[in-house]
Amino acid sequence: MTAIAEQRAHFASLFTRPIPAGVEASETTLGGRPALALSTAAGGDVLLYFHGGGFVVGSARSTAHLPAALVRHLDGRAISLDYRLAPEHPYPAAPDDCLAAYRELLDSGLDARRVVFAGDSAGAALAVTTMLRARDAGLPLPAAAVLFSPAVDLTVSGETMRTKNGVDPIFTPDAIAWLFGQYLDGADAHEASPLFGDLAGLPPLLIQAGSSELLLDDAVRLAGHAASAEVAVTLEVAPRQPHVFQHGESPEAVSALERAGRFLATRLQNQKEQS
Amino acid sequence: MTAIAEQRAHFASLFTRPIPAGVEASETTLGGRPALALSTAAGGDVLLYFHGGGFVVGSARSTAHLPAALVRHLDGRAISLDYRLAPEHPYPAAPDDCLAAYRELLDSGLDARRVVFAGDSAGAALAVTTMLRARDAGLPLPAAAVLFSPAVDLTVSGETMRTKNGVDPIFTPDAIAWLFGQYLDGADAHEASPLFGDLAGLPPLLIQAGSSELLLDDAVRLAGHAASAEVAVTLEVAPRQPHVFQHGESPEAVSALERAGRFLATRLQNQKEQS
Repeated sequence: MTAIAEQRAHFASLFTRPIPAGVEASETTLGGRPALALSTAAGGDVLLYFHGGGFVVGSARSTAHLPAALVRHLDGRAISLDYRLAPEHPYPAAPDDCLAAYRELLDSGLDARRVVFAGDSAGAALAVTTMLRARDAGLPLPAAAVLFSPAVDLTVSGETMRTKNGVDPIFTPDAIAWLFGQYLDGADAHEASPLFGDLAGLPPLLIQAGSSELLLDDAVRLAGHAASAEVAVTLEVAPRQPHVFQHGESPEAVSALERAGRFLATRLQNQKEQS
Repeated sequence: MTAIAEQRAHFASLFTRPIPAGVEASETTLGGRPALALSTAAGGDVLLYFHGGGFVVGSARSTAHLPAALVRHLDGRAISLDYRLAPEHPYPAAPDDCLAAYRELLDSGLDARRVVFAGDSAGAALAVTTMLRARDAGLPLPAAAVLFSPAVDLTVSGETMRTKNGVDPIFTPDAIAWLFGQYLDGADAHEASPLFGDLAGLPPLLIQAGSSELLLDDAVRLAGHAASAEVAVTLEVAPRQPHVFQHGESPEAVSALERAGRFLATRLQNQKEQS
C-alpha cells in the first residue's frame, strides 16, 4: 500500500461511523462524481455536503454521520460528494468537482433557495470556494451554509498556528502545511484560499470551531472577513474542543450539530416564506 | 450649557425611550452609585447592565430599554448602573464603580451564578473589564455576559476603523478617539483596553455587532481573543446594521434582543441545574 493509501485507510478507520438508524443511504453520482445520498424525509430540500480530510484523505462515506445528523432537521436529503483528492488530482480539481455538483443540482430544476451547503475542515473551505465560484459564474447561491472548523487559509498564517501548537491534539502546523502542499502542487496558496477571496454576497453562515485548534484563527478570521463583506455571520467557539469536534459523541458535539441543523432548517424556512 | 452637557442631553434625547409596559422601574443605588432597577418577575436573577455612551455620555436611564428587553427573559430584575463619566471622572473611575456595584451584589448574599452581565458599546467594555477585575480580586464571575457592539480597543486600532469609515452612519474614528481620550486622560490605552487583557476564565459570551460599524473589528477580535483563551463565545454579526442596532425597532433589533435574552436565560438555567 502506498503512503497515501495508508493515510486514507487510517482516516477512514478513525472517523467512519455507522449511518444512524432512520437515515436511508444510497450511492449516487453528482457532477460526474460518486456521491452518497442520505435521506430521512421525502421533501425537496438538499444539503450538499463536502467532507474533510485535508484535500488528501476522507470520502463521502468517511464523515457521513455529520450530514446524516444535519439532514434530520431538513425536509429532504443530503448528498455527500466524493470530489477528487490530491495529490493525484491537485487544485483546482476538487473545486471544479464541487461546482459541477452544485451546477447539476440547479440544472435538474432545483431552486437554489432549497439548497444549503455544509462541510468540515477542508470540505468547509470547498463549500466557501464553491459559493464564490458559483457567484462569479452568475449562479444563484444556496440559502445558507454551515462550516465546521473551516480550513480556509492555505498560507497557514493564522496566529493560532503558533499559540495552539502543542495544544491541538490532532495537528501540527507541519502536517497541515504538508496536506495543503499536496493539494496546491505549486498553485498560489493565497489565491486558492477562500479566506482571502471577496466574500460579498454569501448567504448566512454558521461557523463552528473548537478553541484547541491550530485552525481556530481560520474560523475567527473567516467570520471577520465575511462580516465585513456584509454577510450574516454567526461564529460559535466551543472551549477545549478539538478540530471538527462534531465528529465525537460529546455533549458539545451533539448540541453543536443540533444548532447547526436548526440553523439550516430556519434559513430554508425563511426562504420558503419569502418566495 | 457646557459642550459636554449638550452632548449628554443630545444623547439622552436620541436614545431614551419609554420603559416598556409590564416592566417596573425604580431608582436605587448600588456600589455607592445611582442605578435604575427594572423588574418583570419576583425571582432572584440579576442582570447588571452597563450603558453605552463612550464613557462620556449616557445614563442608566438613557438606554434602559435594552436591559428592559433582556430582563423579560429572566426570573428577576435588571439593574442599570450610573457609573461615573469622563471627563469629570476619568479612568479608572468607571471600572471602579462597576466593580463596586458587582461586589455589593455579592456582599448582599447573591450567588454569582444567578447574576449575568450585559452592556452596549463602552458599557460592554466595562462589563468585560469588571469581569477581569472581579476574577483578579478572587470574586466568582457571573453566569454569562451579552455584549452589544463592544468598544474594547481604546487604541482604536481595528481594521474596520479604516474600512468602515464613511460606511458607519454614526461615528468617525476621530469622534471615537476623542471620547476615549476624555476617558483615558493620559492613562495607557493598551492597558485600559479589555481587548488586550488576559480573558481566561470569563463565562460564556454572546457578542453582537453590525457590519456597518467602525467597531466591527472590536467585536471580531474580542471573540477571537476570548475563544483563544478557552472562553465559550458566540459572535453574531448582522449585515448592514449600525453600532448598537439593538436600540432600534427593526426586525434585526427585535430578533437580536430575543436571542440575547434567551442566551442569558439558558445560561442561568444551566447554572441552576448544575448547583
